[in-house]
Amino acid sequence: MQEFTAKTLNQFLEELASSAPVPGGGSGSALAGALGAGLLSMVCNLTIGKKGYEDVQEEMRRILARSEEIRLTLPKLLQADTEVYSQVMAANRMPRKTDDEKTARDAAMQKALQAAAEIPLQIAALCAEIVELCLPAAQKGNKWAVSDAGVGALLAEASMRGALLNVEINLASIKDAAFVSAMRERMARITTGKAELKEQVMSVVLRTIQGS
Amino acid sequence: MQEFTAKTLNQFLEELASSAPVPGGGSGSALAGALGAGLLSMVCNLTIGKKGYEDVQEEMRRILARSEEIRLTLPKLLQADTEVYSQVMAANRMPRKTDDEKTARDAAMQKALQAAAEIPLQIAALCAEIVELCLPAAQKGNKWAVSDAGVGALLAEASMRGALLNVEINLASIKDAAFVSAMRERMARITTGKAELKEQVMSVVLRTIQGS
Repeated sequence: MQEFTAKTLNQFLEELASSAPVPGGGSGSALAGALGAGLLSMVCNLTIGKKGYEDVQEEMRRILARSEEIRLTLPKLLQADTEVYSQVMAANRMPRKTDDEKTARDAAMQKALQAAAEIPLQIAALCAEIVELCLPAAQKGNKWAVSDAGVGALLAEASMRGALLNVEINLASIKDAAFVSAMRERMARITTGKAELKEQVMSVVLRTIQGS
Repeated sequence: MQEFTAKTLNQFLEELASSAPVPGGGSGSALAGALGAGLLSMVCNLTIGKKGYEDVQEEMRRILARSEEIRLTLPKLLQADTEVYSQVMAANRMPRKTDDEKTARDAAMQKALQAAAEIPLQIAALCAEIVELCLPAAQKGNKWAVSDAGVGALLAEASMRGALLNVEINLASIKDAAFVSAMRERMARITTGKAELKEQVMSVVLRTIQGS
């Protein structure tokens, strides 16, 4: 299969809109998260080496390094997300006439569902990190690019929540209660405070725009 | 200039992250809005012609028609957004040594800023429509695709707010108070109730996932 990131935007949007099960919401979340990371990187790149921002150079370099890591990782997770989904579909197609077949299918299904829950959780965790990094970028980065930090936070927070819907879908069919409960704890850690953080970024952005 | 939608996802993300002023937050918002529209279309395409959804066929076709229109329009507005930005930059580079030059530059600048405010407002309006259409899609569409309607609403609402930040940036430099006030009224009409609507979609999605 062609890597999704080698597709054109047009191709990707066409395939997303089609009735093909992938790309779907998981892929859309990963890509929108990468857009958020790209915008955060842009703010850093417009601050590094710029006059008037001498005091924040080190911090902007550190944010950029992590933002770029995340921007390059999210498309890989987009790809991984479509692959684990194929495994769930493959398990679903396994024969289930005899009891042995049913047991084998069930085991394959549960394993595939757990893998399919893990990938969007990782996507959500990286999107949450982008939301966090957008705050210092909005506060201390190039003020002419402050709105880009705002859009970055908006898209990353929405992508985080979107990816977690895909975790939820898989959790609804997973029977291992300990696995489900551990995943719910991780989800709570990822989301806590992120909506408020995003609004904080938005306040900084609006104040900076209206004050300039 | 190459059409943005003919670029690969990788290329677009690289250019977004770079210090080049375009693509920036306006482009990111338009693209994420198109992702939201694509996901809404996917839900419709997975409902049309499906057993058990006989009663909603006409409604889903109507939603799909509008969703596809918006999905195909947002990339054009992305392109238009980068072009009006170039006009602002061009006006900014006009000579301003004599009073006549200053007057001409000011007029060109104000005209370009008004055009540059209009495009992201149109992007925001289309994103807001996607949020609205995601609710019936989540309520009545294929329940196996309900999370895609949820991600669609999340991305479209974030994109709407992101695009409006780019309207704000331009309004901050526009001197025509009547124009600014008319734009603010349009912005208010676009955003009113959209955050609540998005959360309503999310509730439907979570109830459907957990009940299935």
